[in-house]
Amino acid sequence: MWNDAIPDPAAQQEIKRKAIIRAAAQAFSRQGSHSVTLENVAERLGVSKAALYRYIPNKHALILACQDEALEIAAQAMERASAEQSTGLAKIRRSLQLYLLDTMEQLGVPALILEDNALRGDDALRILQKRDIYEKQMRALVIEGHADGSILPVEPKMAVFMVLGAIHWVAKWYRPDGSWSPEMVADTIAALATRALDPTPAATLAVSFPLDHAKEDLHAI
Amino acid sequence: MWNDAIPDPAAQQEIKRKAIIRAAAQAFSRQGSHSVTLENVAERLGVSKAALYRYIPNKHALILACQDEALEIAAQAMERASAEQSTGLAKIRRSLQLYLLDTMEQLGVPALILEDNALRGDDALRILQKRDIYEKQMRALVIEGHADGSILPVEPKMAVFMVLGAIHWVAKWYRPDGSWSPEMVADTIAALATRALDPTPAATLAVSFPLDHAKEDLHAI
Repeated sequence: MWNDAIPDPAAQQEIKRKAIIRAAAQAFSRQGSHSVTLENVAERLGVSKAALYRYIPNKHALILACQDEALEIAAQAMERASAEQSTGLAKIRRSLQLYLLDTMEQLGVPALILEDNALRGDDALRILQKRDIYEKQMRALVIEGHADGSILPVEPKMAVFMVLGAIHWVAKWYRPDGSWSPEMVADTIAALATRALDPTPAATLAVSFPLDHAKEDLHAI
Repeated sequence: MWNDAIPDPAAQQEIKRKAIIRAAAQAFSRQGSHSVTLENVAERLGVSKAALYRYIPNKHALILACQDEALEIAAQAMERASAEQSTGLAKIRRSLQLYLLDTMEQLGVPALILEDNALRGDDALRILQKRDIYEKQMRALVIEGHADGSILPVEPKMAVFMVLGAIHWVAKWYRPDGSWSPEMVADTIAALATRALDPTPAATLAVSFPLDHAKEDLHAI
């Protein structure tokens, strides 16, 4: 019908669900999950609260959906990176860079920091298990990097916590309306964080980034 | 009096204030600032809510006091590290390591992640200014490291955000009752994060850390 120019009902429902998650992720990211109401999210979307309720029954479900989506993006980034023919370190770098880019594109925020205590019940358990699987896959890549020589001797959990901290923290400081593009941020942060694990890294970063900011900083101090 | 074995009233008041901040920091860190009440903090301290009110009038004041204390620890770590005769990079590493150790010792939590939106009014502005000063000092050390050759060419803000992410994230994963000592964590995370900025780092970490965990990880996957 209509040469498939109009999405079918199931596709439309999925588009609406994604729009809700995107609006919620941005609101949670800016105001904290506790300060955001379903009304706020409905307003951002220009729909009634009743319309929103058809897709998301309450705020707990909304928080879960956001966590789920962010973890799904992480899992897909991990899968794509792991399939590449490269070292353990290169796979980690690629997965982090993809995660930042894809969360910025799909959720409108780089990464997502939500308070774990906002989660309850079986759904919460499922989210935590998903996160554990992701972190285990990342640690497996550290161990792969130990074996192929791309990663220096370092406790794998510690290495993973360090790089994930650098990545998740982007949610705290990145401003989409600033002068740094998503690509610049994703490339530089992923390159810097993984460089920490490289036994013999190159003396310069293989990412292009204007260094003029350094002069501005000097004046500002 | 009493050979100074008993703290004078002013000192006692300061001891109590610190105990409140410590209990609150731990509660906020575990449950999120929104889920914690003044009653919870009073219970943790084994005092009445009325006794607590004498020092802290409301939760907003408690959140501010915690932020203030964490930033004070950061400022002191920065001051001590900056006074050392070393490179820009070594000063950054030392300041981060001291920050982690001192927050763990004084607040009972490594670093402190609080939602900025929990802050309001002039006090909030003062906190944000304090944080800005700290980050500017850190960027100045990056620029010092550019000049003395200890830090590779990298946008200073980006470099600072990356290392601070690795440091603050410790609050999300460190368990005081686990097998990793505060020193192991502070040394390793500070060494790893700053290694990312070193143009020619050593091929191994100069911190001692049992690598047996790696084997456990392999089995767990």
